[in-house]
Amino acid sequence: MSKNTRLKQQMDFILEVDKLKQIQRQTYTTTKNRHENSSEHSWHIALMAIILQEHSKHPNINLFKAVKMLLIHDIVEIDAGDTFLYDKQAQKNKHKNETKAAKRIFNLLPKDQSTNLHNLWKEFEENKTPTAKYANALDRLQPIINNYHTNGKAWQQNNVKKHQIEASNTDIEKGSPTLWEYATELIKKANTEGKLTE
Amino acid sequence: MSKNTRLKQQMDFILEVDKLKQIQRQTYTTTKNRHENSSEHSWHIALMAIILQEHSKHPNINLFKAVKMLLIHDIVEIDAGDTFLYDKQAQKNKHKNETKAAKRIFNLLPKDQSTNLHNLWKEFEENKTPTAKYANALDRLQPIINNYHTNGKAWQQNNVKKHQIEASNTDIEKGSPTLWEYATELIKKANTEGKLTE
Repeated sequence: MSKNTRLKQQMDFILEVDKLKQIQRQTYTTTKNRHENSSEHSWHIALMAIILQEHSKHPNINLFKAVKMLLIHDIVEIDAGDTFLYDKQAQKNKHKNETKAAKRIFNLLPKDQSTNLHNLWKEFEENKTPTAKYANALDRLQPIINNYHTNGKAWQQNNVKKHQIEASNTDIEKGSPTLWEYATELIKKANTEGKLTE
Repeated sequence: MSKNTRLKQQMDFILEVDKLKQIQRQTYTTTKNRHENSSEHSWHIALMAIILQEHSKHPNINLFKAVKMLLIHDIVEIDAGDTFLYDKQAQKNKHKNETKAAKRIFNLLPKDQSTNLHNLWKEFEENKTPTAKYANALDRLQPIINNYHTNGKAWQQNNVKKHQIEASNTDIEKGSPTLWEYATELIKKANTEGKLTE
């Protein structure tokens, strides 16, 4: 394959992923009272991964791999949309839709890069390796932080209760007991302060 | 310092940087006809760094370091705002304002992390090491791609001419002659297609 063909494929991918900037999440940004989108969320948690590494349950994670996972983990939403964690009906079709999206979008890249990023995405989704567990913990923690600091608006609008958040976010503990302790304290505080119902 | 104090400082930083999601850039997103913000831009170029590494002028760059630089390079805009590359008046105060902002924002972190990220930011700004040159090339390339694919709207609205873009973006060549060749072709094409005036 010529250098120009490779570069064109890479640029096609780079242009395609620009669409992630339009995928709206339920979570709000802490200022300006608007929903955040999946590219902003991905940036936020990639940076969090760098800052919070010392709290990973497993000390032997590959931090750069975790950051790469977090940068690409939501790209499938360009086709599949953002699936709210507490929407049980939508969660049923999530895997099928996202698997199809991953195939289409990563395949825009040259074969070696496509395989590499696709495998990274699968590793993140399977959530079994220490690195994937750390990355998944951050993906779950960030909305709790943002929801707490926006008066629980997204929780209230979606009728999400305290016990649902506690039950659905144990992935944080798998990646980091310290961050899970932090999250459960925030959830308790949200409840005490009237931002979140029992 | 106790573990809890460290974690609190880290979370203060993580909450503070959420504000980058509101810093509007001149560039538009390729869909929905709206300005992009600096967190979206940072995500986009961090991902570009991973995809385009083989085009770096220097083969011995530290890719993870480049990605980290790109994730944090615009954080100073939370205080200093985004400075448009072609606004010569604003460019004069940019360095002073951003230096002050970097001090305040990175200092929210525990000392070791603050020093580390502050040094990374300075290395990016000085643009002298091979890794910083590669990172800067991507920071300059992405708006050209997005402006081209949004009919040159941001260029036209800001009365930016072809020769200004060519003169102001030679940092791309310093980091990657291949990407500079790609960019100059895109600029020429934008001109031919009436998206950009001479």
